[in-house]
Amino acid sequence: MARIVRSRESITIAVDAMGGDHAPAVVVAAVAEASLRGGVGQGVNFLLVGDEIAMTEALFELDHNSERIQLFHAPTVIGMGERAQVALEARADASIVQACALVQAGEADALVSAGHPGAAVLAATRHFGLVPGLGRAALASVYPTPRVRGEAEDPFSLILDVGASLRAKPDELLGFGLMGSAYARIVSRNERPRVALLSNSRESTMGTPEVVRAHELLSRHEAINFYGNIEGHEIPRGLADVVVCEGFVGDVAIKILEGVSEAAFDLARSAYHERVAWRMGLKLLSGGLQKIKQLTDFEAYGGAPLLGLEKVVILCHPRSGRRAVGNALRLAIKNVRAELPVAIAEALDTGTSQG
Amino acid sequence: MARIVRSRESITIAVDAMGGDHAPAVVVAAVAEASLRGGVGQGVNFLLVGDEIAMTEALFELDHNSERIQLFHAPTVIGMGERAQVALEARADASIVQACALVQAGEADALVSAGHPGAAVLAATRHFGLVPGLGRAALASVYPTPRVRGEAEDPFSLILDVGASLRAKPDELLGFGLMGSAYARIVSRNERPRVALLSNSRESTMGTPEVVRAHELLSRHEAINFYGNIEGHEIPRGLADVVVCEGFVGDVAIKILEGVSEAAFDLARSAYHERVAWRMGLKLLSGGLQKIKQLTDFEAYGGAPLLGLEKVVILCHPRSGRRAVGNALRLAIKNVRAELPVAIAEALDTGTSQG
Repeated sequence: MARIVRSRESITIAVDAMGGDHAPAVVVAAVAEASLRGGVGQGVNFLLVGDEIAMTEALFELDHNSERIQLFHAPTVIGMGERAQVALEARADASIVQACALVQAGEADALVSAGHPGAAVLAATRHFGLVPGLGRAALASVYPTPRVRGEAEDPFSLILDVGASLRAKPDELLGFGLMGSAYARIVSRNERPRVALLSNSRESTMGTPEVVRAHELLSRHEAINFYGNIEGHEIPRGLADVVVCEGFVGDVAIKILEGVSEAAFDLARSAYHERVAWRMGLKLLSGGLQKIKQLTDFEAYGGAPLLGLEKVVILCHPRSGRRAVGNALRLAIKNVRAELPVAIAEALDTGTSQG
Repeated sequence: MARIVRSRESITIAVDAMGGDHAPAVVVAAVAEASLRGGVGQGVNFLLVGDEIAMTEALFELDHNSERIQLFHAPTVIGMGERAQVALEARADASIVQACALVQAGEADALVSAGHPGAAVLAATRHFGLVPGLGRAALASVYPTPRVRGEAEDPFSLILDVGASLRAKPDELLGFGLMGSAYARIVSRNERPRVALLSNSRESTMGTPEVVRAHELLSRHEAINFYGNIEGHEIPRGLADVVVCEGFVGDVAIKILEGVSEAAFDLARSAYHERVAWRMGLKLLSGGLQKIKQLTDFEAYGGAPLLGLEKVVILCHPRSGRRAVGNALRLAIKNVRAELPVAIAEALDTGTSQG
């Protein structure tokens, strides 16, 4: 392995080059492109972790700034079909494990992976400590909505947890609300993000016992601008800036949003081929359809932050293309520059003193 | 109250006339229309339960067959904003309670309500017994998919529970699978319906402990054609004929499907007004859009069966229009004719002997 040279001013992003359905090609391509970027790329280095030969071959074909990219060899990869826990224990030399170890050792400031999400969450939570005062990390997903928010005019709502864990206790749901708030403040520059609790009713006394108790905790917490409970149909409308839920429900919710988008665009595609009139209609409508597509297009932002750890971790959908991985790299850089783990620790600290 | 006359051959549907956002107008209109119908309406009587003056006034304006409609006065109604349990205990004279009592007394064969869903579920489960061998009733919702199934070529999948309760134990999830199967066999005439378990992974060992155990029970049950676990994005594709999940998750899932539809069509409507080219495009595309709309249109079928009780109960979305209530009436008649509670008891009996 080549010695990794770091300067104090620069940022280094460790990237699991082998993770994802189109790895290493799209991952390496996204890194190559980012290495050439003036603004965002300035002072940013990338540490590609994976099969050295495969990465070298992929880079060879691409324009890139070789001074900004270093390769770190990791001989194996955890495949999508594998059971995360078993695979992680069997292969300490897997790219995701090695990438985590590099971040843990201070060789990089953040981790980006489009690999097996369960394995990435598990590897990250094992390598990096939880922010003090937090019971549980949460995977947050942004989803596009018709409403824009904050100074950055983000057309996104944040939903967490979407699968870092399954169930959540009331105080953990409160922690998700505090982390989500901090994230929306920093990333969307939304000063008073509206936090909502996902339930089966707007009524505060309805829902599971955990949800009923979490409603109480969220509503009386001064650091949280609590909107109240929302129901499933209010998610796509984007009424709330931050939606809090347990991981099992969040996983189902975010995947349904994704699935509806796919099913609708499959139908639109088949309509395109079916009739000349429909084809013309689709062309005339393209601007309008673009608006609908924005509502449901997951490639447009591409990275889900794993919040609550002492390091910045961004996971991409395994099916991510180059654009999605590129957006995830940008998000990782932004979160490192904003010192997100510190900001979240501060938000939780406010939590403890006021809670 | 007028004496209710019943013949052995006829079917009587008790309808909560006061339930729903547009009650009693749309409910009475749907019943009036159904009373005139030749085929389906033959031998079918309706018992409208609610404010007698309001119902009489509404009927007065409408063509209807007065021999097929009887009114039963119930002076109060449970409003949408009320807490179900409290309201039910306070008002035994509410339309939903009276409608349940009439079914329980054998004056009607089925209940249809577009009122407060929580109150309707609670009133029904208090009045009607559970089918023997069943731990819990389940509210089933059909949702449209691109795939058709069964002899009836239903473009619908069934998902249950969507909110009769919150959590579910493994054997209750198995019960949902057996009931859903029986329903798909009878209503969609789908001989071997594919039953799937909603989880956060296709992997049988993933998910909550309840889901992991339910996977085992469903997979080894001979009366169930088990497809395995599915994830949220597979719901809109309609891969499974019956999707099994706990009520809290099901409620969120079905409302997201509904919400995405609304958000997308709001955007299409605004596109229509925004540009002439878009308006022309929408016109040319109308057939194609219709296809997309079918994917997400909840008015098209309008009734959710509450399964596992000894009586036929169909709940409508409170926002239902006349068409949706009319479809729910048709569904109630169909389920009474098919003796659905008996069929479900038989399916569960198979369950006990083989499980």
